[in-house]
Amino acid sequence: MSAHTVCVRFHTALELIGARWSGAVLHAISKGAHRYAEIRAAIPGLNDTMLARRLRELHAAGLIERRVLDTTPVKVEYHLTEMGRDLRPAFEELATWAHRWIPLPDE
Amino acid sequence: MSAHTVCVRFHTALELIGARWSGAVLHAISKGAHRYAEIRAAIPGLNDTMLARRLRELHAAGLIERRVLDTTPVKVEYHLTEMGRDLRPAFEELATWAHRWIPLPDE
Repeated sequence: MSAHTVCVRFHTALELIGARWSGAVLHAISKGAHRYAEIRAAIPGLNDTMLARRLRELHAAGLIERRVLDTTPVKVEYHLTEMGRDLRPAFEELATWAHRWIPLPDE
Repeated sequence: MSAHTVCVRFHTALELIGARWSGAVLHAISKGAHRYAEIRAAIPGLNDTMLARRLRELHAAGLIERRVLDTTPVKVEYHLTEMGRDLRPAFEELATWAHRWIPLPDE
């Protein structure tokens, strides 16, 4: 395998989690927001169109799964897949970096 | 500090390195491509307009520094700052994840 092929995977990974709001959506789900309304409430500034699009993309990429609960009315929940949960070490390193280098908005 | 303020930093960090080609540019510079033409050659598909824009943004964000060498003609080099080099653990975790979960284009 050449350095280039590794780079293609890395590039694909960054595009996937780097898309606007993707990281925030994954973070909200990992913190326990499983219903659509809960996820939206957890992310100020994210509108319905964008949330629906991101959920579709993250589902298509295999990062989240969609569970339809057999209730009346039917409930839908979003959960991280193993692939999604496995992002945790990368996200934790990025959070550490952000904490060290990104100033808070009011600083 | 509330969970929300940490999330704002994390979100900002993801937007910064997740912008299309940003990760690839940082990766190329970290691997020794310091001149504009070297960076462009290292990233197939990246055009001049986009590379110039990304270099400006990464410089403005403090991730790279621009060194003007006193030669004839003048040479310009791009290097990672301490802030940029400090992204390495996060990038390594993401590369590990990508290697595990992202299929190669021809698979």
